[in-house]
Amino acid sequence: MNDSMANLRVVLVATRNPLNIGAVARAMSNFGSTRLRVVHPYVKAFREARSAVGATSVLREAQECSSVEEAIADCGLVVGTTAIGNRDIKHPLRSLDVAGPILRKRLRREPIAILFGSEKKGLSNEDLSYCHWLLHIPTRTEHQSMNLGQAAAVCFYELTRGSRSIEEPLKGGAARMEIVGRISDAMLDCLLRSGYVAARSELLAEEKLRRMLRRFSLEESDAIVFLGMLRKIQKKLELPAEKSKPKTEAQHSK
Amino acid sequence: MNDSMANLRVVLVATRNPLNIGAVARAMSNFGSTRLRVVHPYVKAFREARSAVGATSVLREAQECSSVEEAIADCGLVVGTTAIGNRDIKHPLRSLDVAGPILRKRLRREPIAILFGSEKKGLSNEDLSYCHWLLHIPTRTEHQSMNLGQAAAVCFYELTRGSRSIEEPLKGGAARMEIVGRISDAMLDCLLRSGYVAARSELLAEEKLRRMLRRFSLEESDAIVFLGMLRKIQKKLELPAEKSKPKTEAQHSK
Repeated sequence: MNDSMANLRVVLVATRNPLNIGAVARAMSNFGSTRLRVVHPYVKAFREARSAVGATSVLREAQECSSVEEAIADCGLVVGTTAIGNRDIKHPLRSLDVAGPILRKRLRREPIAILFGSEKKGLSNEDLSYCHWLLHIPTRTEHQSMNLGQAAAVCFYELTRGSRSIEEPLKGGAARMEIVGRISDAMLDCLLRSGYVAARSELLAEEKLRRMLRRFSLEESDAIVFLGMLRKIQKKLELPAEKSKPKTEAQHSK
Repeated sequence: MNDSMANLRVVLVATRNPLNIGAVARAMSNFGSTRLRVVHPYVKAFREARSAVGATSVLREAQECSSVEEAIADCGLVVGTTAIGNRDIKHPLRSLDVAGPILRKRLRREPIAILFGSEKKGLSNEDLSYCHWLLHIPTRTEHQSMNLGQAAAVCFYELTRGSRSIEEPLKGGAARMEIVGRISDAMLDCLLRSGYVAARSELLAEEKLRRMLRRFSLEESDAIVFLGMLRKIQKKLELPAEKSKPKTEAQHSK
């Protein structure tokens, strides 16, 4: 989906929960990133995650590194993630939406690493010393700490944001004004016949109706169906009241 | 963090996995949304998730609804989520980045609902018939289906995107050019004394050095420390070689 995602190295430091490693790998696969590197994970957790049924190829090919230094060796930019909390930040700090354009630009030309710390403590000061700057997902002050798999998915979304934007209105497109005009006429006729609109206020009602129908922003195909419905009602209203009932029953029995 | 998130109703339809219900609730709590509504969930899954240790208040206060219609009754806009797949989409479709600004605007003035379907089948055509339009998170064609908790987190991030942007460079700010100039002088002196630069090429070396030091984009505080280091090295280089060793030892024993 986005070739520059091949330049992303996702580095998980001291991750405990195998479900979280699996979740990060799944999100990577969703967003087109393939290089997962784990630094001294709880070994059992990593092995479990890797051999899990349905493990993505991202997970099977994940590299086990003995240090952060090894995991980021080929990268031109290293960014750590933090929930901030009470920690005294010694690095430049950017929220993800501000970091997004910077990271997208760098990813187009060189490998970059994003580091995620352990579920409990995040990244240590030593881990952070390898980072150029820190990344923060803006969350509620009272509940800052995100689940690892969810935080990773949010980051990958921002890294690919806008690369495949779509906006597909319904194929039919908006109704032509000629049809909307016919709907308006038919409806006004029905309202007059039904007594909803009195003949002397017809002009005002027509204007109101016209504005209302434009607010509906009808699709062409819906407009045609709607006009058909109104025509039917109109026909019915044209009939003298005493004759209308038997006709209805005859229609139903068809 | 974002008052308009109080207008969001998160509707989970026929969710199977209690972990996923819990994950959605956690992400809601992270991003400041409180109204979770579950429509015919697998009852056991919902009860389990609700009573889990560490369940968020979002989860404890979740409403159980008997139909989609009931879950969306107070909303002015209803948006369904879809992984697209092979389904023949009958609704207008927007990718999340395009939908974001529209949803943020609507959230400021009225309640809106976002629907998430079951893990296996997504939303049914009946569920979709209650939606004004559909939302899609752009993922890789080969692996479109996201984990429910991760998809929800990504949506909530987009809904609050930009509301609390931060960019905090280090407090010290960039080094003043006067200090950078002194660093340049000290370094050139060291390079001349060490023989790295020959006296006849001093001018060229000075220019190169000046450009390089500007590329470092030094912080003021780092520049002061760096200058101190160079001064020390400079002093050392000024000493006659034979006297240098005892001095060093004396310094170490301080």
